[in-house]
Amino acid sequence: MSWHATALTLFPEMFPGTLGHSLAGRALREGKWSLDTLQIRDFATDKHRTVDDTPFGGGAGMVMRPDVVDAACAAALADGVARPLVYMTPRGRLLDQAMVRELVAGPGIILVCGRYEGLDQRVIEARGMREISVGDYVLSGGEPAALVLLDACVRLLPGVMGGATSAEEESFSAGGAPLLEYPHYTRPAEWDGRAVPDVLLSGHHAEVARWRRGMAEAATRERRPDLWSRRTPAGALSN
Amino acid sequence: MSWHATALTLFPEMFPGTLGHSLAGRALREGKWSLDTLQIRDFATDKHRTVDDTPFGGGAGMVMRPDVVDAACAAALADGVARPLVYMTPRGRLLDQAMVRELVAGPGIILVCGRYEGLDQRVIEARGMREISVGDYVLSGGEPAALVLLDACVRLLPGVMGGATSAEEESFSAGGAPLLEYPHYTRPAEWDGRAVPDVLLSGHHAEVARWRRGMAEAATRERRPDLWSRRTPAGALSN
Repeated sequence: MSWHATALTLFPEMFPGTLGHSLAGRALREGKWSLDTLQIRDFATDKHRTVDDTPFGGGAGMVMRPDVVDAACAAALADGVARPLVYMTPRGRLLDQAMVRELVAGPGIILVCGRYEGLDQRVIEARGMREISVGDYVLSGGEPAALVLLDACVRLLPGVMGGATSAEEESFSAGGAPLLEYPHYTRPAEWDGRAVPDVLLSGHHAEVARWRRGMAEAATRERRPDLWSRRTPAGALSN
Repeated sequence: MSWHATALTLFPEMFPGTLGHSLAGRALREGKWSLDTLQIRDFATDKHRTVDDTPFGGGAGMVMRPDVVDAACAAALADGVARPLVYMTPRGRLLDQAMVRELVAGPGIILVCGRYEGLDQRVIEARGMREISVGDYVLSGGEPAALVLLDACVRLLPGVMGGATSAEEESFSAGGAPLLEYPHYTRPAEWDGRAVPDVLLSGHHAEVARWRRGMAEAATRERRPDLWSRRTPAGALSN
């Protein structure tokens, strides 16, 4: 059985989206992972197929009904495979590469995509949904966030990246606390009056590695003091 | 002139993606914003249309050539409109709602989507690209990140959200430091043995507002101590 993703959404036409192209798309067609969608509206029980209603307590926007979302979750879980049920929400835990690796190690994922003001809190609790946020910004719905989470997962699946063996070398993937990546250079060696750093042309592997490490540390310290301070107690004190 | 986005990409077929549907898609068709793509490969100058090459200094993966990317940037900027040139990269500053609001206030955006190991550092510097990250995880390319950034922007454009006047009430949008949103409830009032909190049925607007504020603060404190500590000096000391 390949890694299997199911998206619960009011917009199934948004999937596979970006994941239907490039390496992820090829892997999807080759069965290295699979994706299906459930239209949440199909689980509405009234003749208008209502999925949302006004919020108790007042306020703008609409809230997705717990009973309808719950029925969609039951359908997604009906195969008996213990896939984690993830709700994409800015109230969730921030996605990071460690969570991606953990999700990839399992049998797949069920992604609940909210629209409007989001889901009724009771179905989140009743289903024990894992709430995940892709970042501190507001999106029109969970679907773009779900595609980002799936992209991060799929590229780590066996056979998807093909010849690219670099998945574990990249930003946030180094063992221990994350560092930003070092800068990259390729041909031409001189362009627009700008030369590639000499050390990269030196052929001294140890010096190249030392330079790259130093550049990664400098970028992390300057651009992401939050990451740097989580990395070293000394860094934390100096910020 | 409506807000105009241009994506520089090796996969123009990934656009408009999620943004072709729902409210963003309708607004796109109505001309409330516009989107075009430039195929970076069209700016390659050799007969094989090469866009990438091996990294100086060695290592896995390929790096996108500075000259080819620069030519694509020149084409995107040829209309003379001073749109910010944004490179989606995990080395960038973390996207937040304040950056989204700033980008929406301008004439549009030019988004450079990298693939492989990313762009040659010299073209980032020569073009003064603004480097933005959507979160601390690794994606297969810049396109899913670009769609997330565009989604966050487009929903704030005038006329896009239609009747939904709630854009400014949501998570991270409150004046001052961000709070997570309070939980939402809708009909049925009792579901699966779970009742809606009494206060939301009370009709006391001030009490509802106080409860929601308390729930938002509690969620932020418990789930996102990093946000909470940025919010209040007292919070910072207690974490």
